[in-house]
Amino acid sequence: MVELKESIENHINQISEYTATPGKGTTRLTYSQEDLKTRNYLKGKMREYGLQVREDGFGNIFGKLEGTLKDAPSVMVGSHFDSVPHGGSYDGPAGVVAALEVAGLFAKNNLTPRYPLEVVALVEEEGARFGGGLMGSRGMVGLLGEGDFQNLRDQNGVSTVEAMTEIGLDPSLPKKRDPKTMKAFLELHIEQGPILEEKEIPIGVVEAIVGLTQLEVTVKGQAGHAGTTPMDRRADALVAAASIIGRLPELAREAGEGTVITTGRLNVFPNGANVIPDQVVFSVDIRSGKEENVLNVIEKTKTLVHSYSKNRIQTSLEQLLYIQPKELNRGIRSLLKEKSEALEIPYCSINSGAGHDAMVLSDYTDVGMLFIPSKNGLSHCPEEWSDSEDIARAVGIFYETAKSLTEAE
Amino acid sequence: MVELKESIENHINQISEYTATPGKGTTRLTYSQEDLKTRNYLKGKMREYGLQVREDGFGNIFGKLEGTLKDAPSVMVGSHFDSVPHGGSYDGPAGVVAALEVAGLFAKNNLTPRYPLEVVALVEEEGARFGGGLMGSRGMVGLLGEGDFQNLRDQNGVSTVEAMTEIGLDPSLPKKRDPKTMKAFLELHIEQGPILEEKEIPIGVVEAIVGLTQLEVTVKGQAGHAGTTPMDRRADALVAAASIIGRLPELAREAGEGTVITTGRLNVFPNGANVIPDQVVFSVDIRSGKEENVLNVIEKTKTLVHSYSKNRIQTSLEQLLYIQPKELNRGIRSLLKEKSEALEIPYCSINSGAGHDAMVLSDYTDVGMLFIPSKNGLSHCPEEWSDSEDIARAVGIFYETAKSLTEAE
Repeated sequence: MVELKESIENHINQISEYTATPGKGTTRLTYSQEDLKTRNYLKGKMREYGLQVREDGFGNIFGKLEGTLKDAPSVMVGSHFDSVPHGGSYDGPAGVVAALEVAGLFAKNNLTPRYPLEVVALVEEEGARFGGGLMGSRGMVGLLGEGDFQNLRDQNGVSTVEAMTEIGLDPSLPKKRDPKTMKAFLELHIEQGPILEEKEIPIGVVEAIVGLTQLEVTVKGQAGHAGTTPMDRRADALVAAASIIGRLPELAREAGEGTVITTGRLNVFPNGANVIPDQVVFSVDIRSGKEENVLNVIEKTKTLVHSYSKNRIQTSLEQLLYIQPKELNRGIRSLLKEKSEALEIPYCSINSGAGHDAMVLSDYTDVGMLFIPSKNGLSHCPEEWSDSEDIARAVGIFYETAKSLTEAE
Repeated sequence: MVELKESIENHINQISEYTATPGKGTTRLTYSQEDLKTRNYLKGKMREYGLQVREDGFGNIFGKLEGTLKDAPSVMVGSHFDSVPHGGSYDGPAGVVAALEVAGLFAKNNLTPRYPLEVVALVEEEGARFGGGLMGSRGMVGLLGEGDFQNLRDQNGVSTVEAMTEIGLDPSLPKKRDPKTMKAFLELHIEQGPILEEKEIPIGVVEAIVGLTQLEVTVKGQAGHAGTTPMDRRADALVAAASIIGRLPELAREAGEGTVITTGRLNVFPNGANVIPDQVVFSVDIRSGKEENVLNVIEKTKTLVHSYSKNRIQTSLEQLLYIQPKELNRGIRSLLKEKSEALEIPYCSINSGAGHDAMVLSDYTDVGMLFIPSKNGLSHCPEEWSDSEDIARAVGIFYETAKSLTEAE
């Protein structure tokens, strides 16, 4: 265990040096020099652990331990290795490093699996260079076509193909992976929230990746001079919008545990100190692990918003995005809990509030996901930190789970 | 009366043609070609009505009918003749035209005043070219020094002096006017609000120009991921700000008639749909004709804002501007009402919610002000409209008032 923890820390420390912003967090954009250095490090370690390394036409890395069954689907373990600008050392790499160490334990214990084991390191999950996010996993399952991929450009106008070629990657390699080659996908990720830390539980078994609904609410009133328009003659779009926003949190609380509502973006027009606002546009972000909760909150939000269409105020609401909550594979969830119990590692069930590569893959294979605590709930910043001991715990659980799934002996 | 109304309409129509944006409202920036054309028109009419014309070092225009008393102070009537971009035909010109026609009636009736009568047409009240506003009146009483005046530049970097020279004005002419040369100032202005129209009263005698307080409130919370931060762990700056803004209107209503509160400007940080806002900054504009109301509402706003400093939310409040309410001269108010009654013109008392040149001059001479209704309460837009019959009514009241004040026979 001490040895494992040390090995994990070495990986994390080494990878965190591959940043374009030393001293100011991790900036590792896809197909950058920092990507190349990390990629070479990971490929070296994969080979050291006895894996056969290949890259696909997106630059996703796969390190495979063959199984004894012919043409059998792989049990994959992994995560992504890109970062947001000025991000932390754990969002992504924690999961890749855990996967490496699972393979390390297979090697150390000389295991021979029936189904192949694959360590997976994915590109561009954050979308920090080419936008959109989840590019590596979406591409790998065929959700991002060749033409769309080639048309993606970064903010300097550099295309994906140009950027790949720049660091010696080959965009002509196969891109889409047949779902028949995948038996399961296991991903460890940092929680990026405060729940596990608060509960003092080292492992969260992810039950569902929450659905994401984005609404845009427009409130129209009537502009007027702040000095010459009496209070009872006003149709103040901001006062109406404020009343709506002030009441949204109670809708989340009513809907039950795990449901969250956020207004993160709000713009006032014309936004002058002495003009009564005639228009306010704001976002409403609704997330819940249970679809019935999401639908319930959307309905209540609509009713609330429409109830303010009166006294010369007009409200309208547009649904910009609707992603269903995804329950992760029940069998793998049970297996993860069973292995945690056997290893006497405390765990709890948790929902993932953010999207992950595991969410994309869950439509194509059986997916299981573990969370570990994030210090102070922080992520996407240099202060992002997780305990390598918790990563080691996750490695232990994944190792036992992968042994079962690969039928290793 | 029909003749007077026609004359007023001719002036208004003619002046409204001096716009840089024909068909899209009046755009008459100070020292522009449209200023020059309007200036020449006004000076021509002043001369036609027997007035001696002079301009000061700001380009303010004075048309004087000498009185029989030697070195006696003048009874001034007037307003400004600049406009906001894409404004209307009445904000400013209505008052200048009314002043012209008061002089016209003096001429027509061959009156000889003891105190001089002066028609005044002021520059840059709106501040649309050089910022700040009320430049002509502030300059005339010495509130804008020579150096500060010369340093003012428009958004193209053109200085006041350059712009004046461009249209043939002489910035070296005397600027400051000795208060001893002023006996009174009468200004007609459109209401720019809905009150007179709603009451169906053609004349408002302005009691006070409301005080103006501008506060800036900052609410600080804690940023967090919209998906991963549970509702009960949030310090959402926007939810707190929204609750405050939703409660401001009731403070105005409690303070009594004529008190208004407006949040016109609000900015959210970082303003991303999936990030819990960590900072919201918003304006609070408070106006009332009575200082005790203003002070009372400021106190209550402070208490309200500070009551939200809890649960990891920090609120603070800065007072950016405080202008005392200005009660206009009691004697002149009585005179205006008396003349209205004698002429059987319905009137009511009203407060001015906006600042005016009369407000600046009220510290230096006795000031009286009349409002006439604004159609639909609109101003600063092409739809701005007032009835020339109401302007004619104001001319009648000012004519009688000026006769009394100038002791004309």
